Amino acid sequence: MKKFINAVDQVENEMIQGMVKAFPQYVKKLDCGNVVVRTQKKEGKVALISGGGSGHEPAHGGYVGRGMLDAAVAGAVFTSPTPDQVYEGIKAIATDAGVLMVIKNYTGDVMNFEMAGEMAEAEGIKVAQVVVNDDVAVQDSTWTVGRRGVAGTVFVHKIAGALAETGAGLEDVQAMAQRVINNVRTMGAAISPCTIPAAGKPGFEIADDEMEVGIGIHGEPGTYKEKMMSADAITDIILDKILGDLDYTGSEVAVMVNSSGATPQMELFIINNHVADVLATKGIKVYKTFVGEYMTSIEMEGMSISLLKLDDDMKKLLDAQADTPAFKQL
Amino acid sequence: MKKFINAVDQVENEMIQGMVKAFPQYVKKLDCGNVVVRTQKKEGKVALISGGGSGHEPAHGGYVGRGMLDAAVAGAVFTSPTPDQVYEGIKAIATDAGVLMVIKNYTGDVMNFEMAGEMAEAEGIKVAQVVVNDDVAVQDSTWTVGRRGVAGTVFVHKIAGALAETGAGLEDVQAMAQRVINNVRTMGAAISPCTIPAAGKPGFEIADDEMEVGIGIHGEPGTYKEKMMSADAITDIILDKILGDLDYTGSEVAVMVNSSGATPQMELFIINNHVADVLATKGIKVYKTFVGEYMTSIEMEGMSISLLKLDDDMKKLLDAQADTPAFKQL
Repeated sequence: MKKFINAVDQVENEMIQGMVKAFPQYVKKLDCGNVVVRTQKKEGKVALISGGGSGHEPAHGGYVGRGMLDAAVAGAVFTSPTPDQVYEGIKAIATDAGVLMVIKNYTGDVMNFEMAGEMAEAEGIKVAQVVVNDDVAVQDSTWTVGRRGVAGTVFVHKIAGALAETGAGLEDVQAMAQRVINNVRTMGAAISPCTIPAAGKPGFEIADDEMEVGIGIHGEPGTYKEKMMSADAITDIILDKILGDLDYTGSEVAVMVNSSGATPQMELFIINNHVADVLATKGIKVYKTFVGEYMTSIEMEGMSISLLKLDDDMKKLLDAQADTPAFKQL
Repeated sequence: MKKFINAVDQVENEMIQGMVKAFPQYVKKLDCGNVVVRTQKKEGKVALISGGGSGHEPAHGGYVGRGMLDAAVAGAVFTSPTPDQVYEGIKAIATDAGVLMVIKNYTGDVMNFEMAGEMAEAEGIKVAQVVVNDDVAVQDSTWTVGRRGVAGTVFVHKIAGALAETGAGLEDVQAMAQRVINNVRTMGAAISPCTIPAAGKPGFEIADDEMEVGIGIHGEPGTYKEKMMSADAITDIILDKILGDLDYTGSEVAVMVNSSGATPQMELFIINNHVADVLATKGIKVYKTFVGEYMTSIEMEGMSISLLKLDDDMKKLLDAQADTPAFKQL
């Protein structure tokens, strides 16, 4: 295993420390563990908390800031945060308006966030939740019952976070987050695995002429292997699956071409070139495109494509100002 | 070679097409080749052009937009753009206030930009230039006489671009760009090579227990090999070299921890954790930190650290609004 790290058991701690030292104007760390919250607490409005295992950077700490999240909780690499961590995060950001938990659909995440939510409610904090399940590659997986939550989660952070910033109530922010979830679909593929530092070896083996189709974000292989193919061909497979799952006819969409960590921007742009062409031939209008590292799997060489079907409210909230370490919108 | 690409000879074209399709609000492509300019031409102020070979994404097209560049010229992967390309870029953005060329110090780049500048001057366009040479790893290299221009170039784009936006004259913008160059130092290291698509195989071989110290940004090996070491140890080597080259005593700095393309943000943050600690012990104050992909070498797993010694003018310009695909500042 070759990585720019020190002791394997310090990876998560040193990463969070390095993040708060990089962005003190945005985030600070709670004393109770790897939980980051906004440096300036948002008062009187619905607060948003998200998180999950480490290894998805910039998710989720990179999205803490004005217009997006109020707190991000980071478990060990690819491991759910504990209920105590989430609970401390909720307490740190809670206002009278309440707290929305944005949970990616993994059994451990859902269980631990829900437990934390109950602990907070027992103390009189209003808590609501949504569960993101945008991955069309699988119905059930090793990691979860139902579809997995992947890169589409970032759209939930952005749009629900923007609505919370307007002073909307908890039910409205929750409903908007759910509206994004109902309208976003994602699928990915990879050509090389990643190595969890504590494991010390790659999560799967893959031949030089093969790729994994339908990857998740925890270093697991895809739902099936394919012979290596062109960027356009794998993009077609992914778009077919996404467009077959939700009716995008005549709609406007936000596109996200996301790197799993090691895929260079050159290749993401080549993929986006074909995404844009395919959508144009199908009469689907691209409103806005995001290309880069949004929801990664450490150093996996892979990518995912997300399509969010937009309405006018979502467009306005997507365009609203955001100022976080990893997502800025003027 | 495993990559998300189509035909090898279409990599640069499809990448640029994918970029302008992703960000039409920021950039458009000229008909004459892989030159991108702002969608809205900046009028009456000094215009900035930069560029180089492809493979450094988001550099340089990602920095075209308000507060930074007006044009970016992309040659083939790791290959200087032609004088004609640069000349077309200059003509497209030229105003009466003149054009500043920000050139990274590589023999081909300098020669071709200078030739283009002369062609433009022959048509009455005022042209000035600066040459960035921030890499302290080498004195001369295969690629250039003198130090190479690497990630510090992004600080030149940001700070000189912000000054140009205020309406400052060409000599002042050039002088400010030079002031950044005089005060920025960079050095990098890598643990895996990258593969130029047209070459089809990695640029160098490296054993599982080795790393390259003093890499450039064109897939070349470092100035020497070392046994694999901890993130803190390689960070110490790099900081020693940078701090030994310029007197940063008592100053405020901007820090950039840059990924060569495949290094996950987890590792960049672990590196930054130690950068921040070392600078604190030396009494050097970190004013602002940038962590991510700024100047890459396709999918090299490597990183560089840049330190820019700031004065009050530079701080103000670094903080000025910028709105480009890859660099936003509210």
